[in-house]
Amino acid sequence: MLTFADSLTITKPTMIVDKSKAIKNIRWMKNKADNSGVRLRPHFKTHQSAEIGEWFREEGIKEITVSSTDMALYFAQHGWKDITIAFPANVHEIDHLNTLAETIKLNLVVDSLETALVLGRKLKAGVNIWLKIDIGYHRAGIFYTEMKKIADLSQEILNLEKLNLKGILTHAGHAYQESTHEGRVRVYDESVERMRAVHALLAEKLGLNLEISVGDTPCTSAITDFEAVDEIRPGNFVFFDIMQLERGVCTEDQVAMALACPVVAKYSARNEILIHGGAVHFSKEKVTGADGSAHYGAVAFPWQHEWGKILKGIELRSLSQDHGLIRAAPEHFSKIAIGDILIVFPVHSCLTANLMGEFRTLEGGHHEMMTKHAHR
Amino acid sequence: MLTFADSLTITKPTMIVDKSKAIKNIRWMKNKADNSGVRLRPHFKTHQSAEIGEWFREEGIKEITVSSTDMALYFAQHGWKDITIAFPANVHEIDHLNTLAETIKLNLVVDSLETALVLGRKLKAGVNIWLKIDIGYHRAGIFYTEMKKIADLSQEILNLEKLNLKGILTHAGHAYQESTHEGRVRVYDESVERMRAVHALLAEKLGLNLEISVGDTPCTSAITDFEAVDEIRPGNFVFFDIMQLERGVCTEDQVAMALACPVVAKYSARNEILIHGGAVHFSKEKVTGADGSAHYGAVAFPWQHEWGKILKGIELRSLSQDHGLIRAAPEHFSKIAIGDILIVFPVHSCLTANLMGEFRTLEGGHHEMMTKHAHR
Repeated sequence: MLTFADSLTITKPTMIVDKSKAIKNIRWMKNKADNSGVRLRPHFKTHQSAEIGEWFREEGIKEITVSSTDMALYFAQHGWKDITIAFPANVHEIDHLNTLAETIKLNLVVDSLETALVLGRKLKAGVNIWLKIDIGYHRAGIFYTEMKKIADLSQEILNLEKLNLKGILTHAGHAYQESTHEGRVRVYDESVERMRAVHALLAEKLGLNLEISVGDTPCTSAITDFEAVDEIRPGNFVFFDIMQLERGVCTEDQVAMALACPVVAKYSARNEILIHGGAVHFSKEKVTGADGSAHYGAVAFPWQHEWGKILKGIELRSLSQDHGLIRAAPEHFSKIAIGDILIVFPVHSCLTANLMGEFRTLEGGHHEMMTKHAHR
Repeated sequence: MLTFADSLTITKPTMIVDKSKAIKNIRWMKNKADNSGVRLRPHFKTHQSAEIGEWFREEGIKEITVSSTDMALYFAQHGWKDITIAFPANVHEIDHLNTLAETIKLNLVVDSLETALVLGRKLKAGVNIWLKIDIGYHRAGIFYTEMKKIADLSQEILNLEKLNLKGILTHAGHAYQESTHEGRVRVYDESVERMRAVHALLAEKLGLNLEISVGDTPCTSAITDFEAVDEIRPGNFVFFDIMQLERGVCTEDQVAMALACPVVAKYSARNEILIHGGAVHFSKEKVTGADGSAHYGAVAFPWQHEWGKILKGIELRSLSQDHGLIRAAPEHFSKIAIGDILIVFPVHSCLTANLMGEFRTLEGGHHEMMTKHAHR
């Protein structure tokens, strides 16, 4: 039987997107947002692709999130007019920020007076400002209990002409550590409660009615009622991946991205299969099973027009720069030959997509991504 | 004081190479090889850069190693005439292999009859073949004790017209796990002893006098006498990195590559500093200290014409896609301001260089790498 790997003429590690699954994922999240009357502002760092951006646009998305100024420039060049850079504004990039502010509706994230003052002095056009609040992840933002600091910074921003204080924004990255639906619901509810406390404070002290923006794939996948917030910003859900599958955030039917990798050697004494596909393709993100053993990806066979089910007893067990070593139970080992193409689902689709630079679709499309020309 | 970060106008995560240190590293390894009368065929996967290739060429290097067919094409385009692809040959890439075989001296690695037969049928020009031997790393190659398999495959290769059996090749990747000089010497001696046993077998059974190629940075850094082999293929030594420094393979003076990263936020309650510089810049390779805590990079300040010493009590402790979180002892925390540029030394320079696509030198050079255009 000829498979899609034959018709796409795979010769080396190649990123494959199941477009119909990705579009289903987009519709699923968009419907959830619409049903709650909130804005879905998807995070485009997952795919970094103008083409996949169009799939979102066709489902009615107009506002997006990115994680760097370069990524904002890339998507602005591809017609996006309302972009949030969900990263504390980097004042060294003021020239690019001014270019963006003059041409699109630019949303910046701020969590310090120092940065706010530089922006106030150097911005040439108005931008929306989102105060970054730390609701427990402890990565970026002012901790939600530091109410005086939050109120003081808000007051300072209100005094700066080019800065329009639009909302408060958070990211519950610790939701990625939760392995149950209940855990994710708990993180979401706690996040929203903390954000609403900040909202209430700023309403009371400064008479503000700011928007609330939250968003991460684990929580937004678990929740259906988003009415307590104004905006959600998940990203990973367009592809999902093995990390999300293993934690029960998604089903196997929702995993929409994989790498097709050629088998280059087999070692029968150790039931191991060497593929071309290494750390420069998959990244070194791994998941650790209940038995303590780690792996870097799950494996399936290519079928005629799609990929097969994830196989049990066969996993990508180690990675070096270009080598990937798969350990396979004997029933799989015996079926796989040198020269075959295997489908390997990465642990973290965002980091894998970032490395690949281009992708094919099961339907035969071939598209470049932002990193094709290394705008990082 | 103005630093090199000011004169290079760093605005975002930027790879910096200390060219004089890199050239010293190249000379050091070349002298060691010359003194033993063996060929240094450096692995260019570490830097993937035509410019750094020229630094090697100026030190007398003519033969090189790469880890993929695309990388061989890139360096062939940049004037390299003798290239080993140190990865079991991927027969799906036969068109590119033929292009290379017709224009340069191409060295391929083979460890299966299946691949040898396809090459014999499809190659249009002669290539050198290196039999890949597994001397204990268990990644690729025929295990060195499988003497019949090794002899049979050699005999088959001898019968194939376009395949010139040139040598036996191994990689002692397990040397990276050794944390002492003595451990690395032991791995090297054991590797060479096993390779010489294979060599002796093929001399006795088939009358062959094959070359022996070994090579990894930990072992070749530890050893001075390479007379028992014909060729060494280290790569990482041109830059070294924190992994090699922590294991005692190199000294701090030899670490020749770092990323310059802007500070975008500070969190005094937790002594943490947020930089622009995440998993898409550093990769997720980490080192784990004696206390079990992991980190992704060491930190220094930029000075006027060089970087300072690595600071104690300040490390890159977590990474997400674009965010890097540095934990700093109070004496460092208080000295660092939003907008400063920090120098962060990655744990694994090869994977970091692969992600960056371009680099600057301390001297002001600006060069693209192969991955600028995502030939992976």
